[in-house]
Amino acid sequence: MQRILASTGLLNFCRFPKQVRYFSQHFKPQTHKVSVKRNSNIGLSVNKMATKFNREQLESLLKHRFFFAPAFDIYGGVSGLYDYGPPGCALQANIVDVWRKHFVLEEDMLELDTTMLTPYEVLKTSGHVDKFADWMCRDLKSGEIFRADHLVEEVIEARLKGDRIARGKKDEPAAKTDKKKKNRKKKVKEIKAVKLDDETVKEFEIILAKIDGYTGQQLGEIMEKYKIGNPVTGNPLEKPQEFNLMFQTNIGPSGQLKGYLRPETAQGQFLNFEKLLEYNNEKMPFASAVIGKSFRNEISPRSGLLRVREFMMAEIEHFVDPENKAHPKFHTVKDLKLSFLSREVQEAGKTEPLQMTLGEAVEKHIVENETLAYFLGRIYLFLIKIGIDPARFRFRQHMANEMAHYASDCWDGELKTSYGWIECVGCADRSAYDLTVHSRKTGEKLCVRQTLAEPKIVKEYDCEIDKRKFGPKFRKDSPKVTEWLQSRSQAELEELSKELAENQKIVTKDISGIAAEEVEIPGDFVKIEKKKKTVHVREYIPNVIEPSFGIGRIIYCLYEHSFWCRPEDTARAVLSFKPLVAPTKVLLVPLSNNAKLQPVVKEVEQQLKQVQIPFKVDDSSASIGKRYARNDELGTPFGITIDFDSLKDQSVTLRERDSTKQVRGSIKEIIGAIRNITYFGEKWDEGVKNLKEFEGQSED
Amino acid sequence: MQRILASTGLLNFCRFPKQVRYFSQHFKPQTHKVSVKRNSNIGLSVNKMATKFNREQLESLLKHRFFFAPAFDIYGGVSGLYDYGPPGCALQANIVDVWRKHFVLEEDMLELDTTMLTPYEVLKTSGHVDKFADWMCRDLKSGEIFRADHLVEEVIEARLKGDRIARGKKDEPAAKTDKKKKNRKKKVKEIKAVKLDDETVKEFEIILAKIDGYTGQQLGEIMEKYKIGNPVTGNPLEKPQEFNLMFQTNIGPSGQLKGYLRPETAQGQFLNFEKLLEYNNEKMPFASAVIGKSFRNEISPRSGLLRVREFMMAEIEHFVDPENKAHPKFHTVKDLKLSFLSREVQEAGKTEPLQMTLGEAVEKHIVENETLAYFLGRIYLFLIKIGIDPARFRFRQHMANEMAHYASDCWDGELKTSYGWIECVGCADRSAYDLTVHSRKTGEKLCVRQTLAEPKIVKEYDCEIDKRKFGPKFRKDSPKVTEWLQSRSQAELEELSKELAENQKIVTKDISGIAAEEVEIPGDFVKIEKKKKTVHVREYIPNVIEPSFGIGRIIYCLYEHSFWCRPEDTARAVLSFKPLVAPTKVLLVPLSNNAKLQPVVKEVEQQLKQVQIPFKVDDSSASIGKRYARNDELGTPFGITIDFDSLKDQSVTLRERDSTKQVRGSIKEIIGAIRNITYFGEKWDEGVKNLKEFEGQSED
Repeated sequence: MQRILASTGLLNFCRFPKQVRYFSQHFKPQTHKVSVKRNSNIGLSVNKMATKFNREQLESLLKHRFFFAPAFDIYGGVSGLYDYGPPGCALQANIVDVWRKHFVLEEDMLELDTTMLTPYEVLKTSGHVDKFADWMCRDLKSGEIFRADHLVEEVIEARLKGDRIARGKKDEPAAKTDKKKKNRKKKVKEIKAVKLDDETVKEFEIILAKIDGYTGQQLGEIMEKYKIGNPVTGNPLEKPQEFNLMFQTNIGPSGQLKGYLRPETAQGQFLNFEKLLEYNNEKMPFASAVIGKSFRNEISPRSGLLRVREFMMAEIEHFVDPENKAHPKFHTVKDLKLSFLSREVQEAGKTEPLQMTLGEAVEKHIVENETLAYFLGRIYLFLIKIGIDPARFRFRQHMANEMAHYASDCWDGELKTSYGWIECVGCADRSAYDLTVHSRKTGEKLCVRQTLAEPKIVKEYDCEIDKRKFGPKFRKDSPKVTEWLQSRSQAELEELSKELAENQKIVTKDISGIAAEEVEIPGDFVKIEKKKKTVHVREYIPNVIEPSFGIGRIIYCLYEHSFWCRPEDTARAVLSFKPLVAPTKVLLVPLSNNAKLQPVVKEVEQQLKQVQIPFKVDDSSASIGKRYARNDELGTPFGITIDFDSLKDQSVTLRERDSTKQVRGSIKEIIGAIRNITYFGEKWDEGVKNLKEFEGQSED
Repeated sequence: MQRILASTGLLNFCRFPKQVRYFSQHFKPQTHKVSVKRNSNIGLSVNKMATKFNREQLESLLKHRFFFAPAFDIYGGVSGLYDYGPPGCALQANIVDVWRKHFVLEEDMLELDTTMLTPYEVLKTSGHVDKFADWMCRDLKSGEIFRADHLVEEVIEARLKGDRIARGKKDEPAAKTDKKKKNRKKKVKEIKAVKLDDETVKEFEIILAKIDGYTGQQLGEIMEKYKIGNPVTGNPLEKPQEFNLMFQTNIGPSGQLKGYLRPETAQGQFLNFEKLLEYNNEKMPFASAVIGKSFRNEISPRSGLLRVREFMMAEIEHFVDPENKAHPKFHTVKDLKLSFLSREVQEAGKTEPLQMTLGEAVEKHIVENETLAYFLGRIYLFLIKIGIDPARFRFRQHMANEMAHYASDCWDGELKTSYGWIECVGCADRSAYDLTVHSRKTGEKLCVRQTLAEPKIVKEYDCEIDKRKFGPKFRKDSPKVTEWLQSRSQAELEELSKELAENQKIVTKDISGIAAEEVEIPGDFVKIEKKKKTVHVREYIPNVIEPSFGIGRIIYCLYEHSFWCRPEDTARAVLSFKPLVAPTKVLLVPLSNNAKLQPVVKEVEQQLKQVQIPFKVDDSSASIGKRYARNDELGTPFGITIDFDSLKDQSVTLRERDSTKQVRGSIKEIIGAIRNITYFGEKWDEGVKNLKEFEGQSED
């Protein structure tokens, strides 16, 4: 197998941020306009002026409101590890809940909960032990460690920038490129204005364009040729070495059972294939799914929530007949118009995606088959359902040299952020790779047996064994040798028949579980030839279509897509989460601390609990406006105000977060409206159409 | 700190199965009767004859229906690691969902999602690096490893059994004791009939009674004295050595940042205390919660789902003022009558729990305070809500020598199974232990500042510093030294004042972040004495009440409590899950494959989806009875049959799993009844009161 490194696309979605690198030149950072209407999706016509996106302000809000925090903060933190605080955790739980309903329940998938601890053998077989690595190089004096491709990229960019300064050019491209690394600790601390010769500039530009494709040796050669060392001290660096990105541990007390923390949830699903097929009454196609944490020991993670060492994934493995990748529900998505940045477009050096329906994409062979296209559609619908901005979404096809070792095709669902385009969902065709390697390793048949409607006559290799000769020669290994011969695939039998024809014997070291290292089977022991056969059962190893979601990345993008500031006061920030995923749905605000209001507050609480709508009470002494501002930052879509009029007629006020519009009605009416808007997809106008507009309270 | 081992009660719930050991003599295995009515809680009067519980039959069902399977099965499996298949996974998700609603939402807790990877420093401080261990001993010849306490126990039990045989006694007690180890691979393969002298018999009985309390050295002495070696080969064993139960790994590429997989979720909550308090607007008391996986590298896990290396926990840390442990909602649980196996009862050698209300338990000081008691009540209500049999539940208080190093009191919620009483929930008072140690280690104040209603005059140690002298002597360390002095607690100031009085100086190595290793503060630099002070703010470190749930263990117990066989045919097993937690709520069964039935099936599907009720369709050609039998095993509470009459009037049949009773009504009526029974707590009779009884189809 070809050696392909993690950093050059081993895994279909988590080798972040490839797209930042590919397209950063074309991405205009921080200038997209934020329209409330588009995000809130409560359906209000709030066409306030858009404000400029400010990442620092968003991040400070997220930390201040404890959406997340560096893990082990009081111990100084560990890079790449983050905790989710209450609102972040609730948002995640709601998104996972929507995911489960959208995929597992609606598509009748078989959800599993498999272990994270994984023994060495499994990941050796899957290819991860050998290939799941990045290149690192070490400063032998200081002990500092760099990720080789990142270092080369940054140093060369700095030199190009220095060159432009020396040439007196306006530093356009470099400035843009830099934006993407705002959150990385810079390795290159200062830019020196040194003019390069034209030849070098060209070479550097080529290197940058190809940076994701280099092997460790190539990176080492570049570092040597251009004298790239530790950018701060100037020390030379060790040659790039492979660093496997899996966390290793020992299982059990003996220290002999080596294990890893899973780098993806997929393997646990493949290993259970037989049981899943049986559970599904042997029916094909079907899908399994896992929602859970995976782990990658990044060399030096530095992009906040986008590149972490422990992260939540949701992965689907859809097992399908390789000869029939039609999907019975394709018609439900075929008219969705989406953006496709296909391989061809990219190879032509373009960045403008094709706009077309999924149906057209399949027809034009841009997306290979209906099943793959069906999942692209479902992925899109899921993201829109949780509030991702459709205008900042596209599908990008992997380049041939970018794909993981197991993939035959792969589309990434990418979301546009201030960091550039971020791959958040991968949708790969893993072909029969994984089932084949595990089956070969364990000797378990991981395949489907399909009874044919009509028997078929085929010409197939057949292996005839002269059993009497086996016993005397192979003795107690005899059954194993026989079994080995009988379990060869058609392709293998073809090879063996050639070997027999050439050498009049078969020599193999592949038979496991026997004493002899090498077995020699004489030509007169066995006859392999093509024969006509009537076949009643077709046996095949399914292909696997794998939609794989990085939940943490989706959450970060959702933060960016939902964030805006009130134009009248840019210090007042809002997170316009859709009610369906908002951490809390309702804030209960008694107008004052007056005890008389309490019974109504309790009554509203009671009724909200009855219909299971998550809410919070804020009975602090802060002004109504302040209390709402706090909750706008938390993304709470609705506010219920209890005032002294509520005592008269049990009426309360409902406030909508994005527009700050208010309506008034009975407790029951108001809660009914919240429920219909939150869980049953009604728009605001629809939900409150029977309620009176209210302009009693000011927010100040 | 005293050295206390994991196996002697370090952690409040996962040192399984202590209770099996304590009470196995008193537990009569496999004789409890299973009453359908008690478990189903759909409220049907199904007083069919109880059948005997058969663990083998249950386990075979659980594996066959893929509730769970050994992880990496096709690779031979890894002990202590299991995957949950679709029904097990759905059951777990539903239980977690109920847990989240019952605790996080109803109690307004602050849920976090914290990382599993945990750096060494944190777990060193918490005490886990030093104390979270079991004793193991190794056969130096074969390499085999034994858990010391288990080995001693088993060998001594075998010898006592041999003695009884030699004495011609009926082997009563031993037979019972053995039941508990049915699932352990036996270390002692054969029992030799050797008579022991009376003295030894007595000594052995004492050892068995104390087996959980021995240190490694004591276990070693016992092994030496009674010549306990490898029971199969007779080889001598190495002395017991500590084996830390945490999985170790390295974070980052340098290999210098040692880390562990968390053994509990609690630490991540403690470390976030300050942020949580701020998020809660500085209000006390409050609780945080985490639902997630934890890991323990058991020496040789052998009790199926009850002792595993990777498991789902749900933990609450309730932070409370140590001077006020009243709970405002205690009245809501105070009349619950529960079983308490208190410390006193156990010390008196009894096993009959006290029966009383939570109110009485607090009054009589059996449960120490209202907050602890409140959570005991909530734990009980949660378990009943998900279908645990109240008759097989009790709370058992930890013995003084059994508690974890951080706990000042602990009650276990124990569930009775065929393995004995299993601790499934721990409810510990962790006092201020964790916040104190982390605060001391990091220098961060993890405390609450409470503005007093009225200023208080107190006599307190005060530290007066002659600042002019500090600068010249300590130079740039001066601020750190000053800060250190000023941040001492009252107890520490008392110590320092004594030191000053004795030595006229303070010598310390405790000041972190300065150049000098040791600092000497002369007596004339500082004055520490008691002074009257007016205090406006009270500062305190909260105590922590920790309800901690082992979700996997609860699930196993729920399997046992829900399992029974139809008396008319004991091969027909049923899992009587409550509809609320059942993996699938409804099975759709078209009477035949006739295409005419399809539109009605689709219509039912559509309506079920609309109200988000999880269902499955079984349109296989098996008989109706077979299809229902399959789903009884999966615990699906309802079946909807579509027959040819459905074509006439769109009516369908609803079947209840436990009673197999059937009623008939329109699709809308039937789905309404399912919804009310599943999610709104209605009993069957109530839910279907407007529907006609139906006796059309037989199940055979």
